[in-house]
Amino acid sequence: MKLHTYFRSSAAFRVRIALNLKGLAYEAAFVHLPKGAHRQPDYGALNPQALLPTLEDAGHLLTQSLAIIEYLEETRPQPALLPKDAPGRARVRSLSLLVACEIHPLNNLRVLQHLKRELGQNEDQVNAWYRHWIADGLARLEGQLARTPGTGRYCHGDAPTIADCCLVPQIFNAQRYQCDTTPYPGAMRVFAECMKLDAFERAQPARQPDAE
Amino acid sequence: MKLHTYFRSSAAFRVRIALNLKGLAYEAAFVHLPKGAHRQPDYGALNPQALLPTLEDAGHLLTQSLAIIEYLEETRPQPALLPKDAPGRARVRSLSLLVACEIHPLNNLRVLQHLKRELGQNEDQVNAWYRHWIADGLARLEGQLARTPGTGRYCHGDAPTIADCCLVPQIFNAQRYQCDTTPYPGAMRVFAECMKLDAFERAQPARQPDAE
Repeated sequence: MKLHTYFRSSAAFRVRIALNLKGLAYEAAFVHLPKGAHRQPDYGALNPQALLPTLEDAGHLLTQSLAIIEYLEETRPQPALLPKDAPGRARVRSLSLLVACEIHPLNNLRVLQHLKRELGQNEDQVNAWYRHWIADGLARLEGQLARTPGTGRYCHGDAPTIADCCLVPQIFNAQRYQCDTTPYPGAMRVFAECMKLDAFERAQPARQPDAE
Repeated sequence: MKLHTYFRSSAAFRVRIALNLKGLAYEAAFVHLPKGAHRQPDYGALNPQALLPTLEDAGHLLTQSLAIIEYLEETRPQPALLPKDAPGRARVRSLSLLVACEIHPLNNLRVLQHLKRELGQNEDQVNAWYRHWIADGLARLEGQLARTPGTGRYCHGDAPTIADCCLVPQIFNAQRYQCDTTPYPGAMRVFAECMKLDAFERAQPARQPDAE
């Protein structure tokens, strides 16, 4: 397997965690997002969405982090990253999508660049935008962890799931932008539990060969 | 089953299509998004994310449209909304997530309100933002439909999948904001095929009891 990744890409980070949790070795190909390497024709030939990550597996080109992780779950079921019961699976997916659809899309690189270049927002204003959507989304996540049954040592139960693969990169982003995380004790407790695991620790941006 | 819905919510629209495709009857409870009904405590007790839709099924409270549709797929497998092969399932999910993670989150109501109220954007500027992300995302979608194998009468093969449940509401939004859809002939062809089906037709905003 070959993963096209960038150390700071949250979506690639999710997949790195899932690969590590499943004990799958992979070759890394580095795509420098700020330099626009993902918009070059050679990368576009692999991934017409021109987004990170892409996973190559047995001649298949897989795109979108959550679709890739579901694929890994279907083709390499053990250890499972989804519970067995349908309502539990739905809860894990809902927590994952809360990060992937409600927080991260508002804060990714092309949106921040658009705010600067097209809307004329200065650095402080862009940072305020970033922190606003982190606070908005993490409050929703905290509410779901606190008020729906299923939360255990991790987001759902006592084994890591796809929800944890999404939560951890999002907390890294929050910390990088100096967001106040004290209003989210449940999420931060899960984050701390995850980071005790080698699979999460090894996947973090600073541990990647392309880290700057 | 009870679906908490709003006629103009794209995420609720996706689930309405999936329920119709699977021939599942449901009771509708209407949540008026512009009036902030989703932020009221009674709705928050059902859905701590305070987002639409929520599906109630056999005492389970299900949230996030794609998690709900995957749950329906697992609990009511026929007719299938995902292909059987893992790479095909990954492609359908990738197309779905392209809409759900890259286009729609940038254009939902709370983001447009934030642009107006906090960034002082006027109506023309908000509309330009809207159209920018539609154009950006639909170009990626068109590329994936044109350049990856699997596209058939619908986004993937000759039966509707979750990808079509996501595509159709997004095209409705594009048309509502008078976006130019001529650069996306593949996506528009699939859209036209979908709208020939009663399951899509009946799910559209104008056909809902709460339509204004």
